[in-house]
Amino acid sequence: MVRIVRIAVAQCGPIQASEDRRTVVLRLLDLMEQACRNKCDIVVFPELALTTFFPRYYEEERSAMNHWFEQGMPNPSVQPLFDYAKQHSTGFYLGYGEHTSKGHHFNTSILVDQQGVICGKYRKVHLPGDSEYNPHKRWQHLEKRYFQPGNLGFPVWRTMGGLMGMCICNDRRWPETFRVMGLQGVELVMLGYNTPTLNSLGNSESADLRMMQHHICMQAGAYQNSCWVVGAAKAGSEDGFELMAGSCIVSPSGEIVARANTNGDELIMHECDLDLCNFYKQTIFDFAAHRRIEHYQKISSQIGVEPPSE
Amino acid sequence: MVRIVRIAVAQCGPIQASEDRRTVVLRLLDLMEQACRNKCDIVVFPELALTTFFPRYYEEERSAMNHWFEQGMPNPSVQPLFDYAKQHSTGFYLGYGEHTSKGHHFNTSILVDQQGVICGKYRKVHLPGDSEYNPHKRWQHLEKRYFQPGNLGFPVWRTMGGLMGMCICNDRRWPETFRVMGLQGVELVMLGYNTPTLNSLGNSESADLRMMQHHICMQAGAYQNSCWVVGAAKAGSEDGFELMAGSCIVSPSGEIVARANTNGDELIMHECDLDLCNFYKQTIFDFAAHRRIEHYQKISSQIGVEPPSE
Repeated sequence: MVRIVRIAVAQCGPIQASEDRRTVVLRLLDLMEQACRNKCDIVVFPELALTTFFPRYYEEERSAMNHWFEQGMPNPSVQPLFDYAKQHSTGFYLGYGEHTSKGHHFNTSILVDQQGVICGKYRKVHLPGDSEYNPHKRWQHLEKRYFQPGNLGFPVWRTMGGLMGMCICNDRRWPETFRVMGLQGVELVMLGYNTPTLNSLGNSESADLRMMQHHICMQAGAYQNSCWVVGAAKAGSEDGFELMAGSCIVSPSGEIVARANTNGDELIMHECDLDLCNFYKQTIFDFAAHRRIEHYQKISSQIGVEPPSE
Repeated sequence: MVRIVRIAVAQCGPIQASEDRRTVVLRLLDLMEQACRNKCDIVVFPELALTTFFPRYYEEERSAMNHWFEQGMPNPSVQPLFDYAKQHSTGFYLGYGEHTSKGHHFNTSILVDQQGVICGKYRKVHLPGDSEYNPHKRWQHLEKRYFQPGNLGFPVWRTMGGLMGMCICNDRRWPETFRVMGLQGVELVMLGYNTPTLNSLGNSESADLRMMQHHICMQAGAYQNSCWVVGAAKAGSEDGFELMAGSCIVSPSGEIVARANTNGDELIMHECDLDLCNFYKQTIFDFAAHRRIEHYQKISSQIGVEPPSE
């Protein structure tokens, strides 16, 4: 059995604060139709794909942000995506702000299968930024204010022909993210992101350097865990704030095999052979043969830095 | 106080099986003199820098390999390096096969300070390859046969003006290596390697792809732990077996700031500002603020892959 998964990355151009869900969902549907015409199996949308990247806006009252969140999933605004998925047997990954019935807020992604049914949910673990207004920043990044850290870990799902994982944006910079999924045999990791083109603290990092950092994190995560990694940007200028593009598909060898050219709505596609994972998983990255957990204890027992004594 | 460490990477061309230690040490001394003329503080030599990469040779009797190992350090063959270090206040990292007084064998590196005194020892944790002859390989890679896994963990030393770490060759492909040192605040990681230009299992990886994999591992390790990473190759054709070059110096931003051009004896240098680590350590990679160890438990409790149930 050949295990080819045809992946479409649906990079999205900017979503302005003034755009309503209905307009946004029409854009996402257009990308999904393109993917379907190209016989793709799964479409990967960005993080917070239904709204602008609202954590850049400070509100004293957190509840004033509730309108950016979804209280149920699916809900009437996004139902057309679920209907389309079912009618055309096309799964998808979608990021959105989740407001639970208990009043909790998460930066969430779901995996919807080719029957239009939610088969996996992930809540972002590594929330960047601040919980309070930060006067040193050129713009705010308040994910720690508006979201709780994910409480579902990094699950891997056996669905749509393979072992699938999810993460969101800043998670990709933390090797623990990919490793915990790698230890479950993950074959394809989907991730959406909204990443500023420049550093909000105004340091000397160029846009080019930041793009390279973004790519090496995905490439190292893919190679070191012998899996496909698929990243979908929300890109371009949102209300004057620039987000990087650079959506890409990375093979288990660490190579970028497809990459977006624009910073707008754009589909990139690749036939991902999940069995390409096997060579690495069985040789250089045969975890059972090579990992030495007796020397890894600090990773899961110690949070911050503890330097050697003076 | 400006904390500049002038690092020299002393890439070595091939060392043939027939070359004796005295000849090899003269080559290393020549590189050290070049570094000293350029006012470098530390010289980084490769893994197993005193001999050919002997784990490619199969011996039924392991003791037949003992002549490739050092029984004491320093010993008369390498004493000139220690003397030079002391006379010229130049520290160094050196990889060699260690045969302990208790009869154990390790793939070891030492850090020698500017007084010519061994101030740190590391024993390679991630031994690649096989413990028995492997008929499927185009050439053998028997590190698991001739060495025991390192038993010293990944220490970090406060020496020569900074927080210094070491690892060896295949260790760089395992993000746990850099993370354990990152959790101790490491500012500069030195590593030597002997890496075949092509895959011994004859898969389709090109030399170029393997070079990229080598670099992204060091770049991700540097960036994700906000430290300098410095890699020294033994390169070129050893007894007909090709080793990759690509020695380099990676900054805490993940950029390669210096890189060898040849596959022979070659010195590359860079003034590493250890305070460049601080920006990343205090912001995007502020471990205390962002790490979520409650979701990392598998990393240190589970060795091999455990996929989700069918």
